[in-house]
Amino acid sequence: MKKNILIIGGGGVAQVVAHKCAQNNDVLGNIHIASRTKAKCDAIIESVRDKKAMKQPGVLEAHALNALDIEATKELIRKTAAEIVINVGTAFLNMSVLRACMDTGVAYIDTAIHEEPGKICETPPWYGNYEWQRASECADKGVTAILGAGFDPGVVNAYARLAKDDYLDTVTDVDIVDINAGSHGKYFATNFDPEINFREFTGVVYSWQNRQWQVNKMFEIGQEYDLPVVGKRKAYLCGHDEVHSLAKNMDGADVRFWMGFSDHYINVFTVLKGIGLLSEQPIRTAEGLDVVPLKVVKACLPDPASLAPQYEGKTCIGDFVKGLKDGKERTVFIYNVADHRQAYDEVGSQGISYTAGVPPVAAAMLVASGEWDVKKMANVEELSPKPFLNILNRIGLPTYIRDEQGERPLHF
Amino acid sequence: MKKNILIIGGGGVAQVVAHKCAQNNDVLGNIHIASRTKAKCDAIIESVRDKKAMKQPGVLEAHALNALDIEATKELIRKTAAEIVINVGTAFLNMSVLRACMDTGVAYIDTAIHEEPGKICETPPWYGNYEWQRASECADKGVTAILGAGFDPGVVNAYARLAKDDYLDTVTDVDIVDINAGSHGKYFATNFDPEINFREFTGVVYSWQNRQWQVNKMFEIGQEYDLPVVGKRKAYLCGHDEVHSLAKNMDGADVRFWMGFSDHYINVFTVLKGIGLLSEQPIRTAEGLDVVPLKVVKACLPDPASLAPQYEGKTCIGDFVKGLKDGKERTVFIYNVADHRQAYDEVGSQGISYTAGVPPVAAAMLVASGEWDVKKMANVEELSPKPFLNILNRIGLPTYIRDEQGERPLHF
Repeated sequence: MKKNILIIGGGGVAQVVAHKCAQNNDVLGNIHIASRTKAKCDAIIESVRDKKAMKQPGVLEAHALNALDIEATKELIRKTAAEIVINVGTAFLNMSVLRACMDTGVAYIDTAIHEEPGKICETPPWYGNYEWQRASECADKGVTAILGAGFDPGVVNAYARLAKDDYLDTVTDVDIVDINAGSHGKYFATNFDPEINFREFTGVVYSWQNRQWQVNKMFEIGQEYDLPVVGKRKAYLCGHDEVHSLAKNMDGADVRFWMGFSDHYINVFTVLKGIGLLSEQPIRTAEGLDVVPLKVVKACLPDPASLAPQYEGKTCIGDFVKGLKDGKERTVFIYNVADHRQAYDEVGSQGISYTAGVPPVAAAMLVASGEWDVKKMANVEELSPKPFLNILNRIGLPTYIRDEQGERPLHF
Repeated sequence: MKKNILIIGGGGVAQVVAHKCAQNNDVLGNIHIASRTKAKCDAIIESVRDKKAMKQPGVLEAHALNALDIEATKELIRKTAAEIVINVGTAFLNMSVLRACMDTGVAYIDTAIHEEPGKICETPPWYGNYEWQRASECADKGVTAILGAGFDPGVVNAYARLAKDDYLDTVTDVDIVDINAGSHGKYFATNFDPEINFREFTGVVYSWQNRQWQVNKMFEIGQEYDLPVVGKRKAYLCGHDEVHSLAKNMDGADVRFWMGFSDHYINVFTVLKGIGLLSEQPIRTAEGLDVVPLKVVKACLPDPASLAPQYEGKTCIGDFVKGLKDGKERTVFIYNVADHRQAYDEVGSQGISYTAGVPPVAAAMLVASGEWDVKKMANVEELSPKPFLNILNRIGLPTYIRDEQGERPLHF
């Protein structure tokens, strides 16, 4: 049993996490939010207060924190008596925050893989370059560290595990499909941190096929999917965090990740990349200023959080899991549909932030209750999926299945 | 009679100017090149020496100069005993260099209109905002200042004047068409300073029609032209320097400027502009760095000078001048065709730099000989066109005409 949450991050996902923690503070205890810019945390707290999201009276406090500073993070963990840290800051912070948690013995939860600012698309499996190197130390110290507990990675990992446990005898293929059929009305915007968004696609695409890493170029392989609610959508083979853990945990099944892109997105991406504006390496201007082009592109684009009020439409994210059941080939699609406007009305964020921010709170609730307080490092598919999906059914991200019998909600 | 040239600038156009001055140093005397980065001037001098371009033994020297520093520029003018300054540095320098010339009593020649870094597309006529405000002082002091003596503006102004003098009784329309049918083999590049290139197109488009300024959006009005050598090409109504002086000097004729753009250029431009990356106003990155996006785009793009070795194909730039001759409607097209590779072989620069850099040297030769040493400020169409075009016939940019009798070279 653990309690008291320290949320690290001040963006759109942190806002969702704060709202959901507040809605469940009877289970989670005190809530603290820390970010480099305290004003962002203050704004989140104001939003939580506006929506009267706190289930019961309790602590909800903002802090300024440079989470790259491990000692400062440890001090804040101690000061707040937080036993669970939900890290939804930039992906550059993971290893620092994880270290602070390991040193203080508290639980760690994140939603995206660690990245180093100067490196893009490292050798697979990506988790092997950073997080997994701390796995044995976590186990030795009995520290719970749940990696990639957002939607994708996160819920989709639980879907894959569920399909393996309950719907198939043998799994041959996991195809994760992420479609955002929403519209934000801007010329161009990314749905989360543009820096992290573009970094996902500027390297090569790794997929796990025939028990080995296959390399493709971005937008090289596209496929049309016909999905519930959002209909027919073109998706492209992409690199993504969950491929790198599922490759280890799905008994040799192929694992691919597909993301939907509009032609407009692809065109903008292609132009920016062609010119070199997505580079994470600094260049020098004629005036002698050293600048990382990608950071300038980020500064030009709308803050993802600012899209929420106008965002309309739905997302559909799920797993096509294929294999054998009773000797026959079978494919199930396990998925969620989320609505941008509904997310905004509830927590003041758009649907992409909502799908990323609700699951780590469900994970935190399971750590708090002890069910997921596993005293070691784990990716989501290594944990029992049903309690997780059950909480999500209850707190805003219900699970559905489509199989031979059609589409229906899943309850456990 | 004036002699000794001080070239200000160290880019591709400066390189052409230096070569052409060297080839004509019997008329022009000593040659000095000054730029913020002296190494660029050294490289130009090395190129001139490599090509053995000096017509006769003489001075050819490099200098470091921040030409925004008026006193430093005056000191260099005095030290070099230059009587003619050819300013082919960035368009931000014009007013500083002109001031230095006025204070020291030497002749001034430039190839592009003055720009202020923080302002784009000011009120027409553009010359009225800066250069023309110094016209009466130039006349009082007897200082020769020739504005916009590149190709466009410059040679195209002389073409318009020639048509008015020799081919038409009344001019009703001047349509200047600039087509670069060359190919540099890069994903994307601009042919001269990207900053100045993009700034031309991010504002509104001014044209002079029915004796008033008409405003359009960039790429709003396109038209296909069928031109000598380069064939059928799509060109778009653009704002450009020469429209702003020809509007005053062509007796009320309509004046429009059309530039050829590929669909690829338009797409890249539209994406960069849509995202805000062509802005000349600083933005702040998440890390707190203040950066002008346009300067970052510039730093990402190839240096225009670097395109030269691979550049292939031709340019066609000229004036469709329409009006009445002996009571009947008549249109003449006066033009030049230049070749990228030929330019590179001769002076180590691509064709766009070549067309921009040769004309100010012709102008300097006319100032040196006295024919254009008019002791006042003048735009090119206010000066006698034939001696200018005659020199250009001789030094690399021959003039052609297309009319009822077909296409032929023009000699005077």
